[in-house]
Amino acid sequence: MARWQPDARGRLLLAAVDLFTEQGYDATTAAHIAQRAGLTKTTLFRLFADKREILFQGQAAQVSTAAAGVSSAPEGASAVDLLHCGLQALCAEHVPEQQELGRRINSLIATSEELQERAAFKRATIAAALSAAMAARLQDPRQAVPLADVGVRAYYDGFAAWTDARRAEGLAEVVLDELDGLLSSLRSALTGVTPSAGQVRRRVRSVR
Amino acid sequence: MARWQPDARGRLLLAAVDLFTEQGYDATTAAHIAQRAGLTKTTLFRLFADKREILFQGQAAQVSTAAAGVSSAPEGASAVDLLHCGLQALCAEHVPEQQELGRRINSLIATSEELQERAAFKRATIAAALSAAMAARLQDPRQAVPLADVGVRAYYDGFAAWTDARRAEGLAEVVLDELDGLLSSLRSALTGVTPSAGQVRRRVRSVR
Repeated sequence: MARWQPDARGRLLLAAVDLFTEQGYDATTAAHIAQRAGLTKTTLFRLFADKREILFQGQAAQVSTAAAGVSSAPEGASAVDLLHCGLQALCAEHVPEQQELGRRINSLIATSEELQERAAFKRATIAAALSAAMAARLQDPRQAVPLADVGVRAYYDGFAAWTDARRAEGLAEVVLDELDGLLSSLRSALTGVTPSAGQVRRRVRSVR
Repeated sequence: MARWQPDARGRLLLAAVDLFTEQGYDATTAAHIAQRAGLTKTTLFRLFADKREILFQGQAAQVSTAAAGVSSAPEGASAVDLLHCGLQALCAEHVPEQQELGRRINSLIATSEELQERAAFKRATIAAALSAAMAARLQDPRQAVPLADVGVRAYYDGFAAWTDARRAEGLAEVVLDELDGLLSSLRSALTGVTPSAGQVRRRVRSVR
């Protein structure tokens, strides 16, 4: 019997990332991960349906965080303001110590189509949560779906930029900069107006 | 040995959809599907990695169709024009006879998280193809990513509306109407300008 262990989920995550990196995702078994984490297989399967779910354990929390962030926006907030609040709440969950772990998880996902499928599904789930929360607050709820898509794109691209370049700013700053670039590209595509040099600089900075 | 069979892929698709509907996705084996299609299991596994891939067999063709559609756009086409060309090419692949089959496949996907994951991945793959083809043609390639996301949203939502309501128009008309609604919602969210009554009517019509 395993004795009580603090943060079993976190230990399983670290063990899984280490083992998937060392010997590949396919070759690593749940038993192996449990052993490395100093836990029993029973504990692992009590927490996760399979080895893959260990990597995506944040999904439920991210879905409620995104929705709560949107709901916390002040009265009269515009669609873009609501999106900002949702993304800021999502970003606030990440501490700088997660930068390296996030980079390693993203590298792992890139090696496996099975993981990429799961990642695409997680992303769609977060977009749906953001969109539903925004629609509930908007006078024109049809703005929610396409804006939530842009927001999730900014969140993921910003997260990758933050982890890859080990950027010193907080994640929220990088993500909102990315969002600003995407929205300004969209605005120019939809109105034919070229963004100002300042906006372009911000965008160039944000993709470095 | 199976004798030569025309359209083995199409027969496997129909057999898979029938069996998944009758007895559930999890309970249906590849052997069962091959048998229903009058083919050997060897033939099935020569064409598809597993039973799930039978449902997503269009992916590679859709990726090249989307890219080719964008590339075929006239010189000087705007970002939105390029997107139109890509989506029209995608829609041209669907004939009215596929309406019922598309509806059944979408219903099946809704019953299984495994299928939803695969569908989200397919969707991301088509978005990436559209976006890459658009970026190659645009003076400001940063418009490609967010517009391709909106385009894929319009394609999927339009396809669902086309199949669910067995709409008489061609798929392209429904999808471009959906795109028009999404872009006009985005435009109003980004510029603060409320769309005209005519635009709103088009959008309301497009979601029916």
